[in-house]
Amino acid sequence: MKSISYDTSDPIIALASPWGESAVAVLRASGRACISLIAGCFSRSEALRSAPSHSLVHGVLINPSTGAAVDEVVCGVYRDGRGYTGEEAVEIFSHGSMPGIQLILETLRAQGFRDARPGEFTLRAFLNGKMDLTRAEAVGEIVSSRSRAAHTMALHRLEGSIFRRIDSFKEGLKKLLAVIEVQLDYPEDEVSGEELIAKEDILQLKGELETLAATFSTGRLYQEGARVALSGRTNAGKSSLFNLFVKEDRSIVSDMHGTTRDFVHEQLSIRGIPVTLYDTAGLRHGETDDTVEREGIRRSGLVSREADLVLYLVDGSIGIQTGELEGLDLRKTLLIWNKADIVDGPAPEGFLSVSAVTGDGFSLLEEEICRRLSGVEIGADEAVIDSLRQRDLLLRAVESLAQFLEGLDAGMPLDALAVDLRDAMDALGEISGEVTSAEVLENMFSRFCLGK
Amino acid sequence: MKSISYDTSDPIIALASPWGESAVAVLRASGRACISLIAGCFSRSEALRSAPSHSLVHGVLINPSTGAAVDEVVCGVYRDGRGYTGEEAVEIFSHGSMPGIQLILETLRAQGFRDARPGEFTLRAFLNGKMDLTRAEAVGEIVSSRSRAAHTMALHRLEGSIFRRIDSFKEGLKKLLAVIEVQLDYPEDEVSGEELIAKEDILQLKGELETLAATFSTGRLYQEGARVALSGRTNAGKSSLFNLFVKEDRSIVSDMHGTTRDFVHEQLSIRGIPVTLYDTAGLRHGETDDTVEREGIRRSGLVSREADLVLYLVDGSIGIQTGELEGLDLRKTLLIWNKADIVDGPAPEGFLSVSAVTGDGFSLLEEEICRRLSGVEIGADEAVIDSLRQRDLLLRAVESLAQFLEGLDAGMPLDALAVDLRDAMDALGEISGEVTSAEVLENMFSRFCLGK
Repeated sequence: MKSISYDTSDPIIALASPWGESAVAVLRASGRACISLIAGCFSRSEALRSAPSHSLVHGVLINPSTGAAVDEVVCGVYRDGRGYTGEEAVEIFSHGSMPGIQLILETLRAQGFRDARPGEFTLRAFLNGKMDLTRAEAVGEIVSSRSRAAHTMALHRLEGSIFRRIDSFKEGLKKLLAVIEVQLDYPEDEVSGEELIAKEDILQLKGELETLAATFSTGRLYQEGARVALSGRTNAGKSSLFNLFVKEDRSIVSDMHGTTRDFVHEQLSIRGIPVTLYDTAGLRHGETDDTVEREGIRRSGLVSREADLVLYLVDGSIGIQTGELEGLDLRKTLLIWNKADIVDGPAPEGFLSVSAVTGDGFSLLEEEICRRLSGVEIGADEAVIDSLRQRDLLLRAVESLAQFLEGLDAGMPLDALAVDLRDAMDALGEISGEVTSAEVLENMFSRFCLGK
Repeated sequence: MKSISYDTSDPIIALASPWGESAVAVLRASGRACISLIAGCFSRSEALRSAPSHSLVHGVLINPSTGAAVDEVVCGVYRDGRGYTGEEAVEIFSHGSMPGIQLILETLRAQGFRDARPGEFTLRAFLNGKMDLTRAEAVGEIVSSRSRAAHTMALHRLEGSIFRRIDSFKEGLKKLLAVIEVQLDYPEDEVSGEELIAKEDILQLKGELETLAATFSTGRLYQEGARVALSGRTNAGKSSLFNLFVKEDRSIVSDMHGTTRDFVHEQLSIRGIPVTLYDTAGLRHGETDDTVEREGIRRSGLVSREADLVLYLVDGSIGIQTGELEGLDLRKTLLIWNKADIVDGPAPEGFLSVSAVTGDGFSLLEEEICRRLSGVEIGADEAVIDSLRQRDLLLRAVESLAQFLEGLDAGMPLDALAVDLRDAMDALGEISGEVTSAEVLENMFSRFCLGK
């Protein structure tokens, strides 16, 4: 069942830290006899061969054919299947020198290692029973998380939050199935499904599966982020608000920022949601010119159409101008009454009062953006999925339960009903990886980064 | 003497691997009670507190004020001054998640760690006697090396090649000085310097110091690299030769490449020298146009003036055109007779025969480029310096020996001669760091990368 198209226990290596100059680089090695292979090109060969598991051995990597030093390193040794992969493993901590890393990789290849495929270390951890598939997927999600909230959610999944939910669903199904299967052993008794199974139990289980499946859109939002565009007339205060967002964000994780040809944009995190915030600020100079103003409006239109949420600013000290709000897609527009600091009286119905200068109303604005993007309030401790695979399998289980309920209503025989429950069980089993195909595995892990 | 303007034993942290998404990130912690500080925010607190030196402890970093998991990590423990710094130290191996790394740093800061200054780990290693200054400088040079040859040279320095040379110079000086000092104890004997010291000994020592100082230009060349420009008439074969260089380079360490506004250029390594190779290929299209051709010649002129070496190509099947070689700075020009594959007869005097199509003559060309750039042939095992500081101190010692020789010739008294020898000793002592100032140290280590 789990037969992968390549050897999954031969010795593999990969650079596990990012490629670049740094104090320290990490190279991961795992597989059959890997400690002994590395000892073959190590100054303190015997110390490495005899090192206990979970120990650090300092020495020099040597090119065995020339005797030349390759780098001074520390080796972290894992024996008896106690490595991350569930195999014998060595982590090599070297200088973060780019030619040095290349030399080490070449030296190890000459010793018999092959380059690991993306995700191959985690694939081996799964195949060797060190983690189920929901945890394996969480490893990839932790690495690629772009906000603290996404990191926390993925960490919970690594700690087993999804695995435990799936497990409890399976326990519930197993009990129901057992009731039916016992009855199937006594075919002489004519008992209907409705006499054996309480419909509400299935409905509740189905509801819980649906709820978990629905967290996918939230998980995806926190992992992939959203596009938010600032829009509004010239001088409504778009650039002040843009700068306020940038200033208030204490946790910008990316140093990508700058202007595209057409838009100013910035990567930031709004209450844990990674957001790309767009402004058409490049056009601020010479805005008196009519052509430039028209071009600005055209570009605002472009970015607004692509955005998940548009923050439309009105200068409250001037008010809504005739026809200004026409053509806005209000389902994805948040109306903002700006310059609250110099405006008398409250904002009109449907507007959020904000001052981009004093920051008044900014916290409420962030909260509202978060609510509008995610649709729900998510506690950091809740189990949230971020895997299309898991979502689809949950929905397959939901579908099987729906069929079961139909069959129950139609008075279908018990053996037919049992098939639906088993289908639901199988779908849940695939989520954690009890039942899975080599194809699914190869596809899933190929999206991991190298060295993971 | 070695008093630095900040505390050099308090607990410090830094990210030691490059900033970016990856399988594994490394955070370095060092200083007073650092194991216990980390144990205060670690799930397996007791396991960490009682872990022996050079062991790996798996667990979860916890935010102690909220109890929330920060990341699943492995801690490498170094006790009793056995860390890289010569202090108690912990290396934390975490997921290479950008928000995760930020969270870990914040958690550790809250535990009492401060951010390390650039180079502070290596500075502490020096202050605690784990390495002399030539080795400390080599650490920075290994990390920033851009070719294998530069990496190898720096690794030799880390292994003590410079330290041992300096030490043997000092031994020689010490013996000479002892001879004089013994004599100074018997002032009643009127002995001249020339009777005590063989002039040839000083001359030889001075020569050796000069030779080592002169390796600086080679060390710098291998570390910093050189600019090489391809020049010549349209259709002389510049782009074919450019592509051959790129194809033949088996060890490109950087993935920077591409076209600037004006030039095609590529980072590569020619016999271990990091080379930026320039071509004016951007102008290849529509070259029949006179204006474009003139512009091409102007830009070739620009890049040739800036280059360390110009490879000037002549199409051997056409020959040298009238006035073609006028205005070339032949001191930094290598003349190439291209298209050797279709040319009858040998290249003219002063030209190197090459075929950019078949590759004939390419190996000789590489050798000649290397010779022209470095001026000398350097064996990979030779001690080569790459520190302006070391070069200047070597020259200061040379200067003191020159004064000694002058004094010897002028019949100066022994105590004056002894001063010159002591000055030379001091200069050499500064190279390895026996004698040094806080200012020099702070300046030197501030150029290191973070986490080193």
